[in-house]
Amino acid sequence: MARYQIILAYDGSNLWGSQRQANRRTAQGELETALRQLGWQGRSVLMAGRTDTGVHATGQVAAFDLEWSHRPEELVKALNSHLPADLAVRGVKRTREDFHPRFDARSRRYRYRLYCQEVRDPLRERYAWRLWPPLHAEGLYAVAQLLHGTHDFAAFGTPPRPESSTIRTVMQAVWRQQDDEWTFEVEADAFLYRMVRRMVYLQVAVGQGKLAAQAIADVLASKPGIVLPAGLAPAHGLTLLEVTYPE
Amino acid sequence: MARYQIILAYDGSNLWGSQRQANRRTAQGELETALRQLGWQGRSVLMAGRTDTGVHATGQVAAFDLEWSHRPEELVKALNSHLPADLAVRGVKRTREDFHPRFDARSRRYRYRLYCQEVRDPLRERYAWRLWPPLHAEGLYAVAQLLHGTHDFAAFGTPPRPESSTIRTVMQAVWRQQDDEWTFEVEADAFLYRMVRRMVYLQVAVGQGKLAAQAIADVLASKPGIVLPAGLAPAHGLTLLEVTYPE
Repeated sequence: MARYQIILAYDGSNLWGSQRQANRRTAQGELETALRQLGWQGRSVLMAGRTDTGVHATGQVAAFDLEWSHRPEELVKALNSHLPADLAVRGVKRTREDFHPRFDARSRRYRYRLYCQEVRDPLRERYAWRLWPPLHAEGLYAVAQLLHGTHDFAAFGTPPRPESSTIRTVMQAVWRQQDDEWTFEVEADAFLYRMVRRMVYLQVAVGQGKLAAQAIADVLASKPGIVLPAGLAPAHGLTLLEVTYPE
Repeated sequence: MARYQIILAYDGSNLWGSQRQANRRTAQGELETALRQLGWQGRSVLMAGRTDTGVHATGQVAAFDLEWSHRPEELVKALNSHLPADLAVRGVKRTREDFHPRFDARSRRYRYRLYCQEVRDPLRERYAWRLWPPLHAEGLYAVAQLLHGTHDFAAFGTPPRPESSTIRTVMQAVWRQQDDEWTFEVEADAFLYRMVRRMVYLQVAVGQGKLAAQAIADVLASKPGIVLPAGLAPAHGLTLLEVTYPE
């Protein structure tokens, strides 16, 4: 028996998020079903990050203990032959016995994709949020800067347990534009629930001239009396790219 | 009553191709259903290009006669409000009464997308063909050159009617690579059935070292006795980008 760490990718369109739920297709549930085909008898795999219904992943990380006498590369093939088309294991390695993909993680990196078009584009709808009117580039670049560093992100999401800390450290928060497409890439030590979707929603409000960047700056500086507009960017534009670990 | 020319985009994943079929979802069928909601009583819309089951489009062209008292932009909105999520009208203009999107077309442009990865990537599977081992760039660039110009493409597809010509003129045939992704863009006056998928399949065979480029050169030069391997690149990597018309 050894512990394995895997990189899991999925198209979240037809999944009820990452965490197992009774009678619903989830990333964890599908992975556990595939593992059972290989003789796994564990109770539950460990997942690094919780992703909402509809959110995608190229770099989710999971871990489990398995009796496996072949090489790790053979485990990739075996798992993928049992996983449905919208999930795939992209890599496997043996890891230490007490490795925990969530608690040991150093950071998570997400990408949000959107495009600015007046009319919907069926070939991009699945993985990107359509916005109209277009965004002001300067506004977006400036507001992303505000997110860097260690702040109380209470206005941006809810913590895993009601009383726990809402302070997080953002190492990277960058918008990139190519033609009518925008991507927002953000890396933090950890995220509150729905924090990336909320970040995108609020930044887009600034980019569309509906919200002053100063309001976001004030909230992050914990100024009292500031209320940011409610709302979330839709799940289908979001992808969990990577979970990083100390060497 | 006036004739309108529209640009139609669709995700072909859940369509049985472009042409109407009884009891099956097709691009033409869905468009006609939406048009009927606007009072259209025609027998059949005219379509520029025939796309196979699973093939996508960003620039399919259709035409129909309609009584429409509002501006053409309003027609875009009205049609899109009746079309399902996997189809959208991207533009409309009034055109001359005898305009025919197929017979009047000067050229068609397609793009084929593929990526080279040993393990499948669920976020790209829908719109790209996964290939392994990787392709040799020089082989591909060279073989694409062979396709340029006017040739008998009988080995590349079947004509619309059994006795009609298999001679076509290719104006553009170019591979581009970015990281592990490849796209093939090809423009011709017209295409035989399945010609783009066959072109991709044969070029990939060259790029993987399974077929000599000379065999393709010989077939295009109508040398007798050359038999190319049978096969087609899968439909889901292919997108009809544009149909062009004389000014």
